[in-house]
Amino acid sequence: MTDIPPIARGVFAAALTPLDVNLDPDHGALARHSRWLLDSGCDGLAVLGTTGEANSFGVNERIGLLDAIIDSGIPPATLLPGTGCSAIPDTVSLTRHAVEAGCAGVVMLPPFYYKGVSDDGLYAAYSEIIQRVGDERLRIYLYHFPKMSQTPLGLDLIERLINAYPDTIVGMKDSSGDLDNMVAAAKNFPGFAVFAGSDSLLLPVLEAGGAGCITACANIACHLARQVMDEFESGADVATHGALDAMRKAIEVFPLSAALKEIMADHTGDAAWRRVRPPLMPLSVNQVADLKARLAGAGATLPPLPVAA
Amino acid sequence: MTDIPPIARGVFAAALTPLDVNLDPDHGALARHSRWLLDSGCDGLAVLGTTGEANSFGVNERIGLLDAIIDSGIPPATLLPGTGCSAIPDTVSLTRHAVEAGCAGVVMLPPFYYKGVSDDGLYAAYSEIIQRVGDERLRIYLYHFPKMSQTPLGLDLIERLINAYPDTIVGMKDSSGDLDNMVAAAKNFPGFAVFAGSDSLLLPVLEAGGAGCITACANIACHLARQVMDEFESGADVATHGALDAMRKAIEVFPLSAALKEIMADHTGDAAWRRVRPPLMPLSVNQVADLKARLAGAGATLPPLPVAA
Repeated sequence: MTDIPPIARGVFAAALTPLDVNLDPDHGALARHSRWLLDSGCDGLAVLGTTGEANSFGVNERIGLLDAIIDSGIPPATLLPGTGCSAIPDTVSLTRHAVEAGCAGVVMLPPFYYKGVSDDGLYAAYSEIIQRVGDERLRIYLYHFPKMSQTPLGLDLIERLINAYPDTIVGMKDSSGDLDNMVAAAKNFPGFAVFAGSDSLLLPVLEAGGAGCITACANIACHLARQVMDEFESGADVATHGALDAMRKAIEVFPLSAALKEIMADHTGDAAWRRVRPPLMPLSVNQVADLKARLAGAGATLPPLPVAA
Repeated sequence: MTDIPPIARGVFAAALTPLDVNLDPDHGALARHSRWLLDSGCDGLAVLGTTGEANSFGVNERIGLLDAIIDSGIPPATLLPGTGCSAIPDTVSLTRHAVEAGCAGVVMLPPFYYKGVSDDGLYAAYSEIIQRVGDERLRIYLYHFPKMSQTPLGLDLIERLINAYPDTIVGMKDSSGDLDNMVAAAKNFPGFAVFAGSDSLLLPVLEAGGAGCITACANIACHLARQVMDEFESGADVATHGALDAMRKAIEVFPLSAALKEIMADHTGDAAWRRVRPPLMPLSVNQVADLKARLAGAGATLPPLPVAA
């Protein structure tokens, strides 16, 4: 049983994916970013999620990217890669690779092309994936992001999946923004790890018995999320919640990946950070000015960069 | 210039993909279905579209499927495979393969994971794909299906793409159900081939100068669509429009792929036709009864099957 990953808990960044001049993933830059996040407060990294533009990369690119991060020395036990594609065989390939690489688990979108599908269909999809992967080490964190996937994972479906696969369906990233849903999942399903998809909801989700957060803004604010988590766990007054919440609210009015990459470009002095793969686009000049004003208003301060590159 | 495909026109079925017992594409059954459709009135086949469950198949499955159809003797010049994925490299791989196989063109969804993207982002995506494929034989039929992709392709964007790539952006499959949009595209963009995505709109789209239809129901009603097209082109009274419209309306209240597969199972006597890949599911018993009653009410008659298998 030693090779079964423990259930994840803590602060996870939905890591950005830096791109090279050809708009391909820049493995070196991602390794540096990943190391910086782990050194700045993250317990782990949810690479290749929505923020990481995962579904803009092909299967081979995603496998190569995960291999490169691990080869750079990032411990696979800190990684929760996104593996949910619109086609089951792609999801199976990515998931099997992540399990064999020793990842802590995977964050899995449902198949997201067909809209208006039934719970029976979604159950059948997850079931087919789990059976095809066929590995007892598999730990799936369901990815509930109705705004983007247009394919919500309701509590009835989750309960059915937990009952069928209690050792495999171990948690959820809830990016619905609906705190009531997160609280209900945390309370209804004992041992099921509920991660808030928004930094603003980290504290209330912890208070409801949740496991932490997996968020876009942790790319630049993981030090604050770390403090919120540590304050909560120590039983102290959670003084940092306001600062984290302000930073999130300054950013969430913009397209998240582009805004966070703009902030990283500014913080590192490396304009290459601005690149996003179409259909995403960098922020406009006006958006950048607005973003900077909002960040200043929120009193945002990023973690220090390493002294030597 | 002899290897540049002519602009498509006519009746195209968005061909169903039969599945084997493992829910993998059944190449033999698809070849037989394709041949039957071409023998029954189709000018060509838009394989691997939404009806064909394309986005439930991985890149390699889609390449293998197209190769198998062509190897079975279906002329590539009759094929308009769907190649639009959520990741640009996947779209490029599938598109390049289709061009090199001699296909008449491709039907291309925009990247469909990220929602609320800008026209600039969609333009950049199509532009990147066209440049990466880098083949003057490429003929793209844009695939406008806002209900499913949640990523509409507006007329402004289409005009911009036509102006930038006049020899490549040659048409559109419009599955919006919005006749006004199809009429506007046909009238505004001379030489741009507008295909109705619904059989009920074939006649009005032809009357507006459109190129024909690419439809799900042509899997079972291409003989009627053929008659509508032939009657229209001969200048005769289009007497068959009502029958085609009735058949479409009997079916469109159900999930299309599952309903059409149910009809094919009934027509061929082969229950394997009922298989769909999750997240789609076969029709329920009650839905099947309802479907049969509606088809009977519509007076639906399918083309005869080949005498010998």
